[in-house]
Amino acid sequence: MFKTNEQRIKTQIEAIARFTATPGQGTTRLSYSKEDEDARRYIKQEMSAIGLAVREDAVGNIYGRLEGTLKNAPAVIIGSHFDSVPNGGSFDGPAGVVAGLEVAALFREQGLKPRYPLEVLAMIEEEGSRFGGGVLGSRMLAGQITTADLHEMKDHTGVSAAEAMAMLGFNAAKIGLARRTGSDVKAFLELHIEQGPLLEETCLDVGIVDTIVGMTEIRITARGKSGHAGTTPMDRRADALVAAVSVLKELPGLVLTEPDKPVLTVGKLNVLPNGANVIPNQVDFTVDIRSANDDTLQRILKKIEKLLTDATSPGITFSTEELLYAEPVAMAVGIQSHLIRNCEKMGLHYRKMVSGAGHDAMIFASFTDTGLIFVPSKDGISHTPEEWTDYAQLQKGIELAFETIVQLTEAS
Amino acid sequence: MFKTNEQRIKTQIEAIARFTATPGQGTTRLSYSKEDEDARRYIKQEMSAIGLAVREDAVGNIYGRLEGTLKNAPAVIIGSHFDSVPNGGSFDGPAGVVAGLEVAALFREQGLKPRYPLEVLAMIEEEGSRFGGGVLGSRMLAGQITTADLHEMKDHTGVSAAEAMAMLGFNAAKIGLARRTGSDVKAFLELHIEQGPLLEETCLDVGIVDTIVGMTEIRITARGKSGHAGTTPMDRRADALVAAVSVLKELPGLVLTEPDKPVLTVGKLNVLPNGANVIPNQVDFTVDIRSANDDTLQRILKKIEKLLTDATSPGITFSTEELLYAEPVAMAVGIQSHLIRNCEKMGLHYRKMVSGAGHDAMIFASFTDTGLIFVPSKDGISHTPEEWTDYAQLQKGIELAFETIVQLTEAS
Repeated sequence: MFKTNEQRIKTQIEAIARFTATPGQGTTRLSYSKEDEDARRYIKQEMSAIGLAVREDAVGNIYGRLEGTLKNAPAVIIGSHFDSVPNGGSFDGPAGVVAGLEVAALFREQGLKPRYPLEVLAMIEEEGSRFGGGVLGSRMLAGQITTADLHEMKDHTGVSAAEAMAMLGFNAAKIGLARRTGSDVKAFLELHIEQGPLLEETCLDVGIVDTIVGMTEIRITARGKSGHAGTTPMDRRADALVAAVSVLKELPGLVLTEPDKPVLTVGKLNVLPNGANVIPNQVDFTVDIRSANDDTLQRILKKIEKLLTDATSPGITFSTEELLYAEPVAMAVGIQSHLIRNCEKMGLHYRKMVSGAGHDAMIFASFTDTGLIFVPSKDGISHTPEEWTDYAQLQKGIELAFETIVQLTEAS
Repeated sequence: MFKTNEQRIKTQIEAIARFTATPGQGTTRLSYSKEDEDARRYIKQEMSAIGLAVREDAVGNIYGRLEGTLKNAPAVIIGSHFDSVPNGGSFDGPAGVVAGLEVAALFREQGLKPRYPLEVLAMIEEEGSRFGGGVLGSRMLAGQITTADLHEMKDHTGVSAAEAMAMLGFNAAKIGLARRTGSDVKAFLELHIEQGPLLEETCLDVGIVDTIVGMTEIRITARGKSGHAGTTPMDRRADALVAAVSVLKELPGLVLTEPDKPVLTVGKLNVLPNGANVIPNQVDFTVDIRSANDDTLQRILKKIEKLLTDATSPGITFSTEELLYAEPVAMAVGIQSHLIRNCEKMGLHYRKMVSGAGHDAMIFASFTDTGLIFVPSKDGISHTPEEWTDYAQLQKGIELAFETIVQLTEAS
């Protein structure tokens, strides 16, 4: 009936991957950089070539629009982000942008006319690699960011997001014009790489995300007292690292007993003063916890509080700081049903799954029906130059997206 | 019978403390620096004022000599070092140098004539703050360092020890001339602050060191596999920090069961890549272990090996690197007897004790009879601007040193 074009998909993924600040060492494409500007030019050209009406919003998200037959009808949007982490891969983000381009190309090739307008969207700054926080492109168009925020957010060289976007001709003061709402967006569909091992290990074609996990990140600081490693007897010490370890050793166990398989990670840990012959007086570490259920997150946080109380002792104190708290986000049941029916019709092997990572889709879900398709990640890895999805697998995901977009736009 | 001069001691300690690169933030006096040069001038002046014959050896250790009545007899040396850690205190090192100056001053005031020559010694680079390793001044005069070594040792700006000493007029090529041996040194006595809490807590005047601990420092590296903190299920992880913690939690327990009270410290720990949302793929940490008994060190190292074997699992490996191994060093029994008898005669409250830190005395012990006196450290701290020993306490230690030096030189 229809077939995506593997060569076209491959060409586009590879073309976008070439816009990197670190050639030979993966994709480094920070928002509003030279590489962003070059990738942006390419994406706009490709959109134009398919016959889409191209525009950039006030803050730099790129739209390519195919009008629908209905007048003044809300749009169905398909897309993802085109920024990257430093030294990342070719697929995290661009896979979803290229999916949008390919879906639009198939509409054109097959002469399909959507009733609702179809928009292909390429967003900036999902990774938070330049200004922190993440999903900034979608938060900006969802009205969650103000002009003042953009002046406050700075990259590591001190350049604000507002200044950076001005260099590419965008205008933080006009962020209001970038706003999308439920009245002008009928649905949003994103295709993204899984960034985990589950699809590959179970030989499945696609994942249909039902929930994007809730997530919290806290910073725990243990404080004790420095001392000379040779002259301070063991029973006179208030060793901040020994205290921290007494908490750290319990943390993985807190999630293993939870039935909904939350994950907990201590990724960052710093010791002070970090000298081989000095008893540490301070250790701080982050705890990243994710679960599809908000109750689970709350329960784990309470258990951590209790651990810290138990580990407090003469000379040892703990303090906690919440760096992030985001509730779980459900994908629209209606779109999930479309996706499942299409998988069954197309003979795709699928599973419903939870997304352990945040995505632009979770922002869209706050104002419109949203769906998220995962394609397999080789070895479950991402954010490295080795990140990989076979083009045949990417094709299957895009075919599922196309079929679903046809239904959401009620194309004929 | 005799009395040290508290005001003179205080004046000298305070004078030396003023030669610092960090005024108001403790003593920072690196070897061969401007501050070293200024302190050196002051120490030489003080030696001359007491009537000592002043000389500097080829590498910058300072001697002030009072001839004995015996011809060609080996010298009795009293001294310590005058370098400091960055932002250290006024007593670690200088207390022992000032002790030497005061003992010589008392000889002069009381018209004492030693049979064996008396030498006051102020050594450089004990802390290893500039060139690493530590006890360099004593190792140089003990013949443990070659000219080639001095060209290889570099400070953090790339200046070699040989170059640094040349700037002050010393000559690495002539290090052989700095050599002292058992045939020209009859005994060495050092006074040093305890840098630990034991004397203060038990209200004792002085510690008579019988052993300087043996010490080993190893670096353990745990290697696992990175992964996304959100998308990698708990049972698919090879988390290097979780693995490291499974070892770290057992380490303090290894020494608590040993009867000779060894100490174990993990002072330095680094996580890679150290990102809040990335599962660590590498953790390295140092383990500093000290004991008065070599057997104990060996036994603890074997237990650590077993821990690492037990903690190795699919995806997790450990490797170990020995950074330092120094056997325990005994102080001369004869000098300990002198010190004990003198404490009893003088009514000083003393204890025999183990030094948990290394000192120049341990190098002298390799070629001559050596003694080490500790004076109390307020709150057991050192290597900070708050490092403190009451002058009345320092006086008692110096009086013990004087009485003992009189005997060792057989003065009359």
